[in-house]
Amino acid sequence: MSYFSNVNKVKFEGPNSTNPFSYKYYNPEETFNGKTMEEYLRFAVSYWHTFTGEGADPFGAGTAVRPYDRLSGMDLAKARVEASFEFYEKLGVPFFAFHDFDIAPEADSLSQTFKNIDEIVAMIKEYMKTSNTKLLWNTANMFTHPRWLSGAATSPNADIFAYAAAKVKKGLEVGKELGSENYVFWGGREGYETLLNTDMGLELDNLARFFHMAKDYANEIGFDAQFLIEPKPKEPTTHQYDFDVATSLSFLQKYDLQDHFKFNIEANHATLAGHTFEHELHLARVNGMLGSVDANQGDTLLGWDTDEFPTDLYSTTLAMYEILKNGGLGTGGLNFDAKVRRGSFDTDDLFHAHIAGMDAFAIGARVAQRLLEDKVLEDFVADRYSSYTSGIGLDIVEGKTDFHKLEKYALGLGEIKNKSGRQEKLKATINKYILEAYATVNA
Amino acid sequence: MSYFSNVNKVKFEGPNSTNPFSYKYYNPEETFNGKTMEEYLRFAVSYWHTFTGEGADPFGAGTAVRPYDRLSGMDLAKARVEASFEFYEKLGVPFFAFHDFDIAPEADSLSQTFKNIDEIVAMIKEYMKTSNTKLLWNTANMFTHPRWLSGAATSPNADIFAYAAAKVKKGLEVGKELGSENYVFWGGREGYETLLNTDMGLELDNLARFFHMAKDYANEIGFDAQFLIEPKPKEPTTHQYDFDVATSLSFLQKYDLQDHFKFNIEANHATLAGHTFEHELHLARVNGMLGSVDANQGDTLLGWDTDEFPTDLYSTTLAMYEILKNGGLGTGGLNFDAKVRRGSFDTDDLFHAHIAGMDAFAIGARVAQRLLEDKVLEDFVADRYSSYTSGIGLDIVEGKTDFHKLEKYALGLGEIKNKSGRQEKLKATINKYILEAYATVNA
Amino acid sequence: MSYFSNVNKVKFEGPNSTNPFSYKYYNPEETFNGKTMEEYLRFAVSYWHTFTGEGADPFGAGTAVRPYDRLSGMDLAKARVEASFEFYEKLGVPFFAFHDFDIAPEADSLSQTFKNIDEIVAMIKEYMKTSNTKLLWNTANMFTHPRWLSGAATSPNADIFAYAAAKVKKGLEVGKELGSENYVFWGGREGYETLLNTDMGLELDNLARFFHMAKDYANEIGFDAQFLIEPKPKEPTTHQYDFDVATSLSFLQKYDLQDHFKFNIEANHATLAGHTFEHELHLARVNGMLGSVDANQGDTLLGWDTDEFPTDLYSTTLAMYEILKNGGLGTGGLNFDAKVRRGSFDTDDLFHAHIAGMDAFAIGARVAQRLLEDKVLEDFVADRYSSYTSGIGLDIVEGKTDFHKLEKYALGLGEIKNKSGRQEKLKATINKYILEAYATVNA
Amino acid sequence: MSYFSNVNKVKFEGPNSTNPFSYKYYNPEETFNGKTMEEYLRFAVSYWHTFTGEGADPFGAGTAVRPYDRLSGMDLAKARVEASFEFYEKLGVPFFAFHDFDIAPEADSLSQTFKNIDEIVAMIKEYMKTSNTKLLWNTANMFTHPRWLSGAATSPNADIFAYAAAKVKKGLEVGKELGSENYVFWGGREGYETLLNTDMGLELDNLARFFHMAKDYANEIGFDAQFLIEPKPKEPTTHQYDFDVATSLSFLQKYDLQDHFKFNIEANHATLAGHTFEHELHLARVNGMLGSVDANQGDTLLGWDTDEFPTDLYSTTLAMYEILKNGGLGTGGLNFDAKVRRGSFDTDDLFHAHIAGMDAFAIGARVAQRLLEDKVLEDFVADRYSSYTSGIGLDIVEGKTDFHKLEKYALGLGEIKNKSGRQEKLKATINKYILEAYATVNA
Repeated sequence: MSYFSNVNKVKFEGPNSTNPFSYKYYNPEETFNGKTMEEYLRFAVSYWHTFTGEGADPFGAGTAVRPYDRLSGMDLAKARVEASFEFYEKLGVPFFAFHDFDIAPEADSLSQTFKNIDEIVAMIKEYMKTSNTKLLWNTANMFTHPRWLSGAATSPNADIFAYAAAKVKKGLEVGKELGSENYVFWGGREGYETLLNTDMGLELDNLARFFHMAKDYANEIGFDAQFLIEPKPKEPTTHQYDFDVATSLSFLQKYDLQDHFKFNIEANHATLAGHTFEHELHLARVNGMLGSVDANQGDTLLGWDTDEFPTDLYSTTLAMYEILKNGGLGTGGLNFDAKVRRGSFDTDDLFHAHIAGMDAFAIGARVAQRLLEDKVLEDFVADRYSSYTSGIGLDIVEGKTDFHKLEKYALGLGEIKNKSGRQEKLKATINKYILEAYATVNA
Repeated sequence: MSYFSNVNKVKFEGPNSTNPFSYKYYNPEETFNGKTMEEYLRFAVSYWHTFTGEGADPFGAGTAVRPYDRLSGMDLAKARVEASFEFYEKLGVPFFAFHDFDIAPEADSLSQTFKNIDEIVAMIKEYMKTSNTKLLWNTANMFTHPRWLSGAATSPNADIFAYAAAKVKKGLEVGKELGSENYVFWGGREGYETLLNTDMGLELDNLARFFHMAKDYANEIGFDAQFLIEPKPKEPTTHQYDFDVATSLSFLQKYDLQDHFKFNIEANHATLAGHTFEHELHLARVNGMLGSVDANQGDTLLGWDTDEFPTDLYSTTLAMYEILKNGGLGTGGLNFDAKVRRGSFDTDDLFHAHIAGMDAFAIGARVAQRLLEDKVLEDFVADRYSSYTSGIGLDIVEGKTDFHKLEKYALGLGEIKNKSGRQEKLKATINKYILEAYATVNA
Repeated sequence: MSYFSNVNKVKFEGPNSTNPFSYKYYNPEETFNGKTMEEYLRFAVSYWHTFTGEGADPFGAGTAVRPYDRLSGMDLAKARVEASFEFYEKLGVPFFAFHDFDIAPEADSLSQTFKNIDEIVAMIKEYMKTSNTKLLWNTANMFTHPRWLSGAATSPNADIFAYAAAKVKKGLEVGKELGSENYVFWGGREGYETLLNTDMGLELDNLARFFHMAKDYANEIGFDAQFLIEPKPKEPTTHQYDFDVATSLSFLQKYDLQDHFKFNIEANHATLAGHTFEHELHLARVNGMLGSVDANQGDTLLGWDTDEFPTDLYSTTLAMYEILKNGGLGTGGLNFDAKVRRGSFDTDDLFHAHIAGMDAFAIGARVAQRLLEDKVLEDFVADRYSSYTSGIGLDIVEGKTDFHKLEKYALGLGEIKNKSGRQEKLKATINKYILEAYATVNA
Repeated sequence: MSYFSNVNKVKFEGPNSTNPFSYKYYNPEETFNGKTMEEYLRFAVSYWHTFTGEGADPFGAGTAVRPYDRLSGMDLAKARVEASFEFYEKLGVPFFAFHDFDIAPEADSLSQTFKNIDEIVAMIKEYMKTSNTKLLWNTANMFTHPRWLSGAATSPNADIFAYAAAKVKKGLEVGKELGSENYVFWGGREGYETLLNTDMGLELDNLARFFHMAKDYANEIGFDAQFLIEPKPKEPTTHQYDFDVATSLSFLQKYDLQDHFKFNIEANHATLAGHTFEHELHLARVNGMLGSVDANQGDTLLGWDTDEFPTDLYSTTLAMYEILKNGGLGTGGLNFDAKVRRGSFDTDDLFHAHIAGMDAFAIGARVAQRLLEDKVLEDFVADRYSSYTSGIGLDIVEGKTDFHKLEKYALGLGEIKNKSGRQEKLKATINKYILEAYATVNA
């Protein structure tokens, strides 16, 4: 049977194609710089938004119309697996990602829950034998069930901590079983609501203990996936411990975990924390910790995680610029942690949305590559900081000076000249490169 | 002469006093827990807001009516020093704090600027001989002059870096000369406007180099003041490097500077970064890095640093709770980094505002002390986390477990019971303690 | 049977009571200014948060532990009615409020849905015969079911408009049947997600048509309840048509609906729109349109409607100040549109939370009354604007001048003196009045 | 002499031009739909940002390097006029706009101030005789001087009201003298800081009185310029009375001023108020009140008016879409209420920035026109709302139904089908049209 009979295989047909289910800018087979587009743009489908999600919001029930709507329990879980591999194949997407309870329902007992997971994992593994789509990462849902109300590894309740450990242990085993390239820790409810009832010191110590045990266990079973922390502020707890890249970095440093983790950076989480997407990517990159990306976008006029499909070409351009400067994402990818709007409830919208996101990143990649090839920004930056390549500047960088020498130098200076930062001209240049991208596709 | 002839010495006269220039709740001589209120509440006047500030905003000129308005240059600087010590004496405040250019005008050359500073510092030193008011901290203004437009230690221009070094060298000398208990580094323009023209990696490396040189020089001259970093996001650069406590901590850890710094935490900077004031204090405290406080408040409906005088009793209570748990602020204090509103332009308003702030912190201190004495929150927290004091919880804390043992334990659990966090009841309890504070003053 | 056997009748026992289920500050029988506290503080319990709500959030399932958890359908609905009247009686609260689907489940057909409603309404009516608790307002839920995804009266689908009309028709009949004093229109999904697919002009015209028909029908059946619009921005649609009081006022004026509506103002909606609670109350008051209040509070560091129980005494004081200046709320009341936090999942928390809210408003009322009796703010304001009571100011107010006369007058002016706004002193005064409130209870 | 000798006349040279001082997308002479681009895109230079502004911010002094930096007083004012007309001519811009004190310095007396204005106005008038650049609008600065600290027409001080009247009287005369096409009222400090000291009712009444007198005087002198209100929230007063379009509309309706005003809508003010730029334009348009535009952009991660030059092509596209649907802006224009960043301090940056903005709007205009020509959005919208063109929907629109009929209809409905809103597909379509715009220039 087919779950998405409206849609044939999505292919690159170019900007002039009138087929709404085709890529206009994303040509996976095209090469640049010796790699194919597919090798750069390791897109992943988020199982939760695309197959498990129903379009509910805090004010209303799910609106999604899905071919497996009438099923429930393990029947529903299995139908979703079937549908998911049809979707991956039709979309031509190289990766998917999931939380444990996206793929299998939670049962009354933990042991039965594990059996449910095992059954679906076996089914997925079977599908993967003939599919081109691989597992980018998996993770454990430790936020939905009421037990997690005050956190998992940071719960005030030691039983919850133990329960979380069992879940992540299982997750690591599942990751190994399915050949996952990464394992993600998104904080879920690791944070607090009010300091009035919270022991933050103990909670953070426990979180570090948890991560060390997880790493030990992964080593024990030979699961060498990259561990990723996904920073997020404000949701679901008012004060999430992994607020942003810098906050998470300070935690990893303090607890000697820095070598074992990289970051999974989400665009919408960045803006909720008061940063740009590219700021978070850049900060992770210069610390050697840019691991993977949750590719979505938010609405900065709203104060929550809207998880929209990424269509803003400025954002995709600047993100791909960081990713290309990073030499790609290694084992990481561009996971569409994005959901169709509640009003886009048809299965067709799932295709439209992913195509929109993949095309937006494909354009972004082209623009970023051309910016790098032309050294548009790099030459400007090199010139702006050129004073650090000789004289007093070089002494500073090489550690050959001190406050005595610097004072003497400063007292001898006349009027100091700065250089214009040319922000407006640079922004116009970005526009020019975006607008010209079309021609490079069309050619 | 008198600059503030409307006001006599401000004293504690109790809640029923009708004298508008008296403390109603702040009795510096009252003791609690073996110390006087003045020892707990090490208030400081901010020279910049109170004597140098003129009430300008981005849309308008200064409104402040001050007795030295018609003076300029060094005459103005000297009049301000005279006025400041009259103000400290009348207010009965133990500390003040300044940037170099608050006290002395910048000249055409750096050497003349240093002479201006030296002249005023000598005058201040003379005043301090007979004053009870001491220097809490000093710092260098490296943001007002156009030269700093792209930062000081993080400027793209090495000459600027050298100039900044000379300024901080002077500042450390001034701090030593005046017996300052701390030296503050507020980022000023250390940050960036757009990544399009920025080399963040070099800028952060340079900032660390600068701090190491500053520490070396302080050691060299035997200036043992506590170094403080003051986190702030968003202003004046769009992306300030010292966004919040966690961000600054990650920087200090990375560059091996953690042992040399503590934090000067400002209420309004906390809320601009998306945190509560108490969150930032708490996070610094559990990392052993709570150094000093910029005591003000912001307007969370506005997106910039409004630097209002602190009057919110919830905020002062929760701040003093952290400070008392920290065993006080050590060499730090409560610096009113706060300005009278533009519409409060009389000199009388300077007194009203400081009295309002000091009374608000005095009430906060009382409430916090009684909460601690009654162990209202501590007992609740201890009970909430009691599962970590025995059994599996204790094993977790003591590092005696692993994912195997935890999984086995979890599989054996029945339904897990959580405890209510009682947030509403705790908030009502805080109200009760605030409302009862009056009786403890009145008695 | 008893649903809340832990709790006896909640009574005023004063600040020193150790009974956690007593009012410490709210004495309903106390009189001031010739009315009892209960007459001023027309508190209402929100059926949806207190009886229907389960503590779910966008990231997790309900946590609430309720005595009727295992029931479903009409059995659950009936148990909730029983529980609700026990709760009202024990709490001693004069009012409740509901949406249609809070009290009765939606059925497969609209006719069966109406039968469900009728059955529960009859049951409620029976309970009301012997209860002291009355219906403050009712309304229709037109946002939960998927059909409402693009609005009700502003849906692009005329069938939805008709369906909404049937629902509101029923709601008006129910309101009449139960003697409701008001009928509320909260926009629900009346707004839009993106202009790209929206005809805002038609949607607003249709909304006005809907309101006119509703008013006509209420008149026809002799239901003379006050109609209330409840402004809210941003949720659930990105652009809600009833953004705030001013926006809703512009709509009502444009469509000649102003005489038929007042506003139901919610604290948390005010802050989401960028205003203070008291701003919205004040603006409604000076336009003669302050109808009722949704008494809660938000977290201004978060960007969504958190609907916390009101405990901030500044907010309750300034709200009660507006309400007392308004001569009370008429047929309106103080409805706790507030939910216990997800971590406060016990039924005890429902009592703690309502007690906290009622005590906070009782203190606020006392403080506001004393401020008004002492004319603390009113005298200050009168003096500040006194220039409009004579001379050129009186001419302006009386319409006796023009630009010619004013220019002539202005050219003859010397330096113009303004008066200090004394914001800091006024804030300290508010603190003093809050702190003294305790003594007035204790006395 | 030349103030901008680096730059020759800026002309359209197309996307491939390497001249940094040329338009790449803005060809003023190109026609579409029977009008030239210049007729659609009535660009204006803001005198205050471009000639008077110095690049100061709340933390630092001006950085701008300008050829008239060393002048002061009337000499400076005259040099700026000379420079401005050279700039207009080189840029080829059809309009400029100013506040009175942008062009002439305030003197010690109002009468001398008027003389200063008269002298510069005469000079400007002389320049305009030979210039192609006209006055889009003028306005009065009633916010910079300390006297305005609590507002102008809403000041608590009647003398200030009179002074404001004299200023606006002069402004209307100047507008007439220079043939201004509009007169703008931006609120300045019309708003309040705290309700504790404010009589909002009197202030709003006085504001309305002021506007009526202004209109009367304009009529008297035969100055038929369009009056414009420019909504803005939050700055400089915490609560600006003209918060947004809807708020200002409610005010105009209440005081019977609606027929005399349209709106001057600024992008950055829209986002500060929590709306999109296009929302404000659309709302004004459907109320027949879209008058003019302040063309800039903000940074939604910051909480103040950053007044950046507009370069976001999404924003310019959606703005031009509204403007084209409005049949253009009539007497209004696209005024660059935008300032070069503080780091862009060269005069060259003034050209780069204006070129960037003009090119961005030119691209936006092309994209919008093609969207309209292809009826991409209009057809989608027509289909989405088609149910209102027949049957029950038509009855609703034509006022032929009531709650009885609608209920009967609703009870007869089966399952109601909604249509997908296709937001993701529409966003991808906007991307496609933007990317294709280049080809239409290049051709």
